[in-house]
Amino acid sequence: MDQTAAERIKEACGVFGIFNPDGEEAAGTICYGLASLQHRGQESCGIAVCDTVGPKGNMNVHKGMGLVHEVFKERTLTELKGNLGVGHVRYSTTGETSLNNAQPLVLNYIKGTLALAHNGNLVNTEELREELARTGAIFQTTTDSEVIAYEIARARVHTKTVEEAIRKTASRLKGAYGLVIASPRKLIGVRDPLGLKPLCLGKKGNSYMIASESCALTAVGARFLRDIRPGEIVTVSRNGIASDMGMQQELHAHCIFEYIYFARLDSTLDGVPVYLSRKKAGAALAKAYPAQADLVTGVPDSGITAAQGFAEQSGIPFGLAFYKNSYVGRTFIKPTQKERESGVRLKLSVLEQAVRGKDIVLVDDSIVRGTTIANLIRLLKQAGAGKVHVRISSPPFLHPCYFGTDIPSNRQLLAASHSTEEIRQLIGADSLGYMRVEDLPSTVDGLPLCTACFDGRYPMSVSSALQSQDPQKL
Amino acid sequence: MDQTAAERIKEACGVFGIFNPDGEEAAGTICYGLASLQHRGQESCGIAVCDTVGPKGNMNVHKGMGLVHEVFKERTLTELKGNLGVGHVRYSTTGETSLNNAQPLVLNYIKGTLALAHNGNLVNTEELREELARTGAIFQTTTDSEVIAYEIARARVHTKTVEEAIRKTASRLKGAYGLVIASPRKLIGVRDPLGLKPLCLGKKGNSYMIASESCALTAVGARFLRDIRPGEIVTVSRNGIASDMGMQQELHAHCIFEYIYFARLDSTLDGVPVYLSRKKAGAALAKAYPAQADLVTGVPDSGITAAQGFAEQSGIPFGLAFYKNSYVGRTFIKPTQKERESGVRLKLSVLEQAVRGKDIVLVDDSIVRGTTIANLIRLLKQAGAGKVHVRISSPPFLHPCYFGTDIPSNRQLLAASHSTEEIRQLIGADSLGYMRVEDLPSTVDGLPLCTACFDGRYPMSVSSALQSQDPQKL
Amino acid sequence: MDQTAAERIKEACGVFGIFNPDGEEAAGTICYGLASLQHRGQESCGIAVCDTVGPKGNMNVHKGMGLVHEVFKERTLTELKGNLGVGHVRYSTTGETSLNNAQPLVLNYIKGTLALAHNGNLVNTEELREELARTGAIFQTTTDSEVIAYEIARARVHTKTVEEAIRKTASRLKGAYGLVIASPRKLIGVRDPLGLKPLCLGKKGNSYMIASESCALTAVGARFLRDIRPGEIVTVSRNGIASDMGMQQELHAHCIFEYIYFARLDSTLDGVPVYLSRKKAGAALAKAYPAQADLVTGVPDSGITAAQGFAEQSGIPFGLAFYKNSYVGRTFIKPTQKERESGVRLKLSVLEQAVRGKDIVLVDDSIVRGTTIANLIRLLKQAGAGKVHVRISSPPFLHPCYFGTDIPSNRQLLAASHSTEEIRQLIGADSLGYMRVEDLPSTVDGLPLCTACFDGRYPMSVSSALQSQDPQKL
Amino acid sequence: MDQTAAERIKEACGVFGIFNPDGEEAAGTICYGLASLQHRGQESCGIAVCDTVGPKGNMNVHKGMGLVHEVFKERTLTELKGNLGVGHVRYSTTGETSLNNAQPLVLNYIKGTLALAHNGNLVNTEELREELARTGAIFQTTTDSEVIAYEIARARVHTKTVEEAIRKTASRLKGAYGLVIASPRKLIGVRDPLGLKPLCLGKKGNSYMIASESCALTAVGARFLRDIRPGEIVTVSRNGIASDMGMQQELHAHCIFEYIYFARLDSTLDGVPVYLSRKKAGAALAKAYPAQADLVTGVPDSGITAAQGFAEQSGIPFGLAFYKNSYVGRTFIKPTQKERESGVRLKLSVLEQAVRGKDIVLVDDSIVRGTTIANLIRLLKQAGAGKVHVRISSPPFLHPCYFGTDIPSNRQLLAASHSTEEIRQLIGADSLGYMRVEDLPSTVDGLPLCTACFDGRYPMSVSSALQSQDPQKL
Repeated sequence: MDQTAAERIKEACGVFGIFNPDGEEAAGTICYGLASLQHRGQESCGIAVCDTVGPKGNMNVHKGMGLVHEVFKERTLTELKGNLGVGHVRYSTTGETSLNNAQPLVLNYIKGTLALAHNGNLVNTEELREELARTGAIFQTTTDSEVIAYEIARARVHTKTVEEAIRKTASRLKGAYGLVIASPRKLIGVRDPLGLKPLCLGKKGNSYMIASESCALTAVGARFLRDIRPGEIVTVSRNGIASDMGMQQELHAHCIFEYIYFARLDSTLDGVPVYLSRKKAGAALAKAYPAQADLVTGVPDSGITAAQGFAEQSGIPFGLAFYKNSYVGRTFIKPTQKERESGVRLKLSVLEQAVRGKDIVLVDDSIVRGTTIANLIRLLKQAGAGKVHVRISSPPFLHPCYFGTDIPSNRQLLAASHSTEEIRQLIGADSLGYMRVEDLPSTVDGLPLCTACFDGRYPMSVSSALQSQDPQKL
Repeated sequence: MDQTAAERIKEACGVFGIFNPDGEEAAGTICYGLASLQHRGQESCGIAVCDTVGPKGNMNVHKGMGLVHEVFKERTLTELKGNLGVGHVRYSTTGETSLNNAQPLVLNYIKGTLALAHNGNLVNTEELREELARTGAIFQTTTDSEVIAYEIARARVHTKTVEEAIRKTASRLKGAYGLVIASPRKLIGVRDPLGLKPLCLGKKGNSYMIASESCALTAVGARFLRDIRPGEIVTVSRNGIASDMGMQQELHAHCIFEYIYFARLDSTLDGVPVYLSRKKAGAALAKAYPAQADLVTGVPDSGITAAQGFAEQSGIPFGLAFYKNSYVGRTFIKPTQKERESGVRLKLSVLEQAVRGKDIVLVDDSIVRGTTIANLIRLLKQAGAGKVHVRISSPPFLHPCYFGTDIPSNRQLLAASHSTEEIRQLIGADSLGYMRVEDLPSTVDGLPLCTACFDGRYPMSVSSALQSQDPQKL
Repeated sequence: MDQTAAERIKEACGVFGIFNPDGEEAAGTICYGLASLQHRGQESCGIAVCDTVGPKGNMNVHKGMGLVHEVFKERTLTELKGNLGVGHVRYSTTGETSLNNAQPLVLNYIKGTLALAHNGNLVNTEELREELARTGAIFQTTTDSEVIAYEIARARVHTKTVEEAIRKTASRLKGAYGLVIASPRKLIGVRDPLGLKPLCLGKKGNSYMIASESCALTAVGARFLRDIRPGEIVTVSRNGIASDMGMQQELHAHCIFEYIYFARLDSTLDGVPVYLSRKKAGAALAKAYPAQADLVTGVPDSGITAAQGFAEQSGIPFGLAFYKNSYVGRTFIKPTQKERESGVRLKLSVLEQAVRGKDIVLVDDSIVRGTTIANLIRLLKQAGAGKVHVRISSPPFLHPCYFGTDIPSNRQLLAASHSTEEIRQLIGADSLGYMRVEDLPSTVDGLPLCTACFDGRYPMSVSSALQSQDPQKL
Repeated sequence: MDQTAAERIKEACGVFGIFNPDGEEAAGTICYGLASLQHRGQESCGIAVCDTVGPKGNMNVHKGMGLVHEVFKERTLTELKGNLGVGHVRYSTTGETSLNNAQPLVLNYIKGTLALAHNGNLVNTEELREELARTGAIFQTTTDSEVIAYEIARARVHTKTVEEAIRKTASRLKGAYGLVIASPRKLIGVRDPLGLKPLCLGKKGNSYMIASESCALTAVGARFLRDIRPGEIVTVSRNGIASDMGMQQELHAHCIFEYIYFARLDSTLDGVPVYLSRKKAGAALAKAYPAQADLVTGVPDSGITAAQGFAEQSGIPFGLAFYKNSYVGRTFIKPTQKERESGVRLKLSVLEQAVRGKDIVLVDDSIVRGTTIANLIRLLKQAGAGKVHVRISSPPFLHPCYFGTDIPSNRQLLAASHSTEEIRQLIGADSLGYMRVEDLPSTVDGLPLCTACFDGRYPMSVSSALQSQDPQKL
């Protein structure tokens, strides 16, 4: 899936937290951690740090629109003093995209200061916000995070520790969340009871880290310790690490879309390496929808790994068929309609010698509007390819996601209004096969999954009010 | 007074609000209004507008660090749709200077949305903030305005109208404030009961405007209607204009510093034209401290008007003696120590032919560290001037201001540690006279004044906690 | 004269050069010098420096669009190593305005490297350029300076010293020029034989400086030594200062417009202080066109000094009548037609108390389109002024300037198509008087002048080809 | 080869020219063409266009530091009016990197205007420059292109057409060049007689295009017509296309490094598809240095294609082993020494499941300092890989290139001072094999090559003066 921003599936966010008990500066490591989670959000990012040794309550924060390396320059990092901190990369789900909604949210409340970074989407935000408003709360952002922060502040009035307040708050939250919180002396991680959103724990020297994905730990040279369990609250302080399992429940429902799409290829989530799950998806496709072909290839970079799995299972050789121009950034001038028609192809081009005269299996992870895949099929055929069999490593999206996956609205989703055969014709493929919902568990070793976007079976009741809304506007 | 930023006396802010019942866009006019209030704050600015015709609650806002013309470009203004709005220019008093603290504050609360811009300083912010925090409030800025907004939101839970909530809130605020508020259908202005901060009302066509100073009304072509009275709440809506005088009290105490320093030369505050009050100050100086001289001149631009008053009273001719390089901006590279010593004079230079062989009266509005005036006296003498008699149109600062005037700390104030004679010697003047506190009322036609920064007589009790603090850190 | 950029009279440039024989860095001083010449050009600026001690030929240069303080930041200056250098501020006359045309021009040629900064306009550029092109020259800019550099390079092939080559070149140049040149070991200044453009010499410690105006010397703490004589070539090297008078001629013709308009109020050019010449102009106006009035005032800042002169001569008191908003910069968003009509007055406002009920003499240095002065007269009358008598301290522009003064084209010049009485009516004045050409010499103590823009008497023959062109396109 | 900028091999430039006889705007297409040549130069870029219909000589140009999409925004392109033009992307070889040296070079000369873009490096620039200087030429850049432009201008004085002047000039140039020139009515392409630098011709509708590589034609939807022949001058005008073969010679020497490194994977140069030549290089490696392994992989993206060739030849499966973070740009904050040691791996990470327990063949296109490959080997072993056999698809660099390939200086080149066995040990590989020079022709179907950087056999005499210089400083 390599589309324009308009038709991309958007993820909420990535979070990263660190506590350096030896007093070392935290901002540099957070910055690298966030850069490794950049695939989870590119619209804004931020870092908040504080010093656990100095006087309480001084939280240094910097946020900005853009990529991590655009927002954080050498000088900015130098000014972010502190050995404890949290960071965030954001792709807007709830709330408009603006600097005002960038995270971490830093606030003062009865017990001093707090910084909070949140990945996911609550389904009862509106209820909570209304309840708060009825007692006079004011809201300066449109994010879930502000509501969560409020709940913590309210709870904290009556609790002895911040963990207690967070525990109380968590029990009121419905939906998907991976939270990292810097309370002036503690780093706290919270994961939703269903385990919808990933969160994991790492260590390097004496420092503990919490991150949305294991790849961020590897990137900063830390050791992956374990996933934070669904419903777990982990607190890191000078006294070491503590775990509160009070919210745990039996039912888990990990988001299948993390494996198919969001997570980075080199991450391992809840024991399942993303790389393997994608190869298995390709293999499952090869079994369910075999094809006669000379070459298996993938759409760069989204379909490459599943294509390798398809190739191994089918015995058809795998090879790369496209060149990707990595200099063509997000902000490149758009071709005019005329230029588009006459064939400007900046981002991807075909390696003619790799495909000429061959029947091809072309694998990708999803189809949204179908424009990109149709384009690639046309390019392949122009370059002399024979048949082009398309295999998609996810089932068709048919249901809205209420937990943070911003699937383009129904009007843009091809699968919502077309049969597979119609789509095949529209994109110009010689055959088309979508991953079957029943094959999904096999790609993640039987891990309990949320597959609601494919089959409509939601792991929790979603209020009817919410369902009547356009999920994109949640 | 024409010093470096470090030694300048800082003002809180300027506010501007407008309601165009005919539906015309408000942002452009607010922008011009703010540009005319730029002298009240140069660090950040912002505009929030909404549409009184469309569905309630959509507040468009843009804020940025820098001057009005840097922050608001053509395109930005075009996107700020709405016929009702408020704007703000800020010089940090409370709160650190940062985009996060820029105003107007826009928020959602139980009754929808609200935008609020505030000029002044409360003396009971900490009490209010603590009280709010004790019931679970969170604070995302360090501004008084956020506390005021909270109070309004809390009050609004139990009131029928926003005016009522504002009235309730105002009765809890202690200190100096000029507030403009855009509630989706109304423009509301509030002035503190002592009248410490100025606020006035204007009209152009069917549109009403509220501004910190009358010069902003003139600049946008509006007619000055009247000052908003101390303790008055003015509400402009489709039904016209309404006034609530419930908070009014007998004791007024207008800030003398507005006349001496903050307000623009072409504004009229509470019936007293600033231009006349400065000329009268000069005349009072001429009576209290006459001098034998050939020329009266002023430090550009701060001392020019008082110098004219001195000249008229004394009969000594008035003339300009300095050239001011208007291209040397705030951010010019600083001369090295060596360059400073050897005489770099970028900002001001003497008009030799105007001063050679003459005894001179040099007027300015204040002395902070004394470096600038000492420099000018030296330049005058190098250019061949005879005696230089310095006259200052304000009394020496001896007491902290708790109401929003950010007087440099005692360590920087020459008058705090030196007698007038010592200062005269330090700056190299042949004589030195400060405005006498007893002459101040005569410069404003007997208007009741707050002159606490000169004589320590505060118009309200200030909590001892506050007094023990460094006033700059309020 | 305080108009929009469109109707402003534009000057070519300002130049500044320095040689620090003791090895001290030059860039900082050049930067301050240029900042003091900023009134001569605001579109681009540049500095080129080299080290007279190190190996020959390494010229460090930085140029940019914008004001000196925008283009030269601390870090840039630090990288400009060298004790000898030249700088330039530019207002485009010849050549389009672009970075490509910014000066100094730095080049390599047969004898190494050279940096050249030029103020003025040649009238035989096209001839010289064609002659060069006929032997294969290429031109990368549209400036006179590139042609001059070429001539020097060609001459240098056959001369022993760079001075000789410059002397040879100068004899081929026709028109107005003030040149400063950094040849790796020497600083050279050249002034055109008529003395149309100013150039002067200063000293500070062991360092010599050459600048367009004396104000730049004062600004950096240097002592004014003398004007460079018309036709003189001054060479500063380790061996001290040398002067070549070979080009001198009897006829001099100093540009009157320097005194009226371009030069800074605190400069002295060819022995005549600009401040005094402007006061004398005001006095001459008072004699030629007396008026009955209560107040003499000037348009800020262009008419203030002449107004003082008028006041002294006439005995009518002088006073300031306008407030100028110094925050409204060059790039402020433009009012829409509607806002313009309804009276947005951002830049200037009237001090009502200063003018109400008074008959006024309003002095300015020139009228171009008349819009600004008409506006000010209207404002004065709205504020309650009685009669407004306008006095202009220059005669009407009637002839094009070929020497570097970019007078707006005839279509924009009111005086080109209207009689004085018509202009008076158009601007709404009660009387109008222009400086008489015959009075000009008295304002500069009889210095020989070029007054061609007023009377068409050019001090040198200008080729008919040139005259047929639009002077703005020279 | 995926190193830091410091150790990268740099290429001179990429050029693109177009003539739209139907009058369509050219700048957009040039922009896309340049974006497809971005791999050839990332430091600066530029476009110059003119209108063949309007009056002669108006060349519109825009240049800037940075990538094509950073320098050319929508608005800039709109202002670049013209149907004929040339563009350039630059990686400095000769000349310092600065905006001043950015191309195309636009100039005026005896016959009007000219824009010129140059890829390659002359070996007789200094001789030519000196000769020009001796007759009074001035140089404003340090580029070869300025010297070429001068030669054309000089020749043009005595020729009837610009083609003739170019032909005359070309006969004086020694070295490597691919030139595109926009003369107001013609687009001209010139390729050096040895064919060292690539240049090709394409067509789309009625428009002709000339580009450094065929990929740029494909990217804009044009049809590849043919390579421009070594020594050919192609002129495109309203009268169609004309070819001048007068400079042709027998000896050709195409740069082998284009195939190994510079050219884009989807380009075809002189009849040889780059993709196939790289696969053949991999196959040749497999034959010359076979290895026992479970997986063949390549360093992304530089070694991937050769790895596929190795895999096919050897029968060992090919697979991807690394994840590349495409968000980590060129300007990312640099890890401190400490972070580097503790294992920051931002750019590349290993796919553990792909490599654990496997013996691996790791292919790359070159080794410069060896740091990157050593790092990757370490990462592979940490992830559980067994043996790591390194195969490099180019021979070791042992000789300087004088034709535009900026090979890091000897001090940085591992191969210059170490034996293959020593390098193997240094990088921690279990075996190491470099492409053999004798195998190179087989990778390009016997095309005549310049392999001087590997074997020191230069295709033309290079002056001894040049050879004594550091080739990097040419």
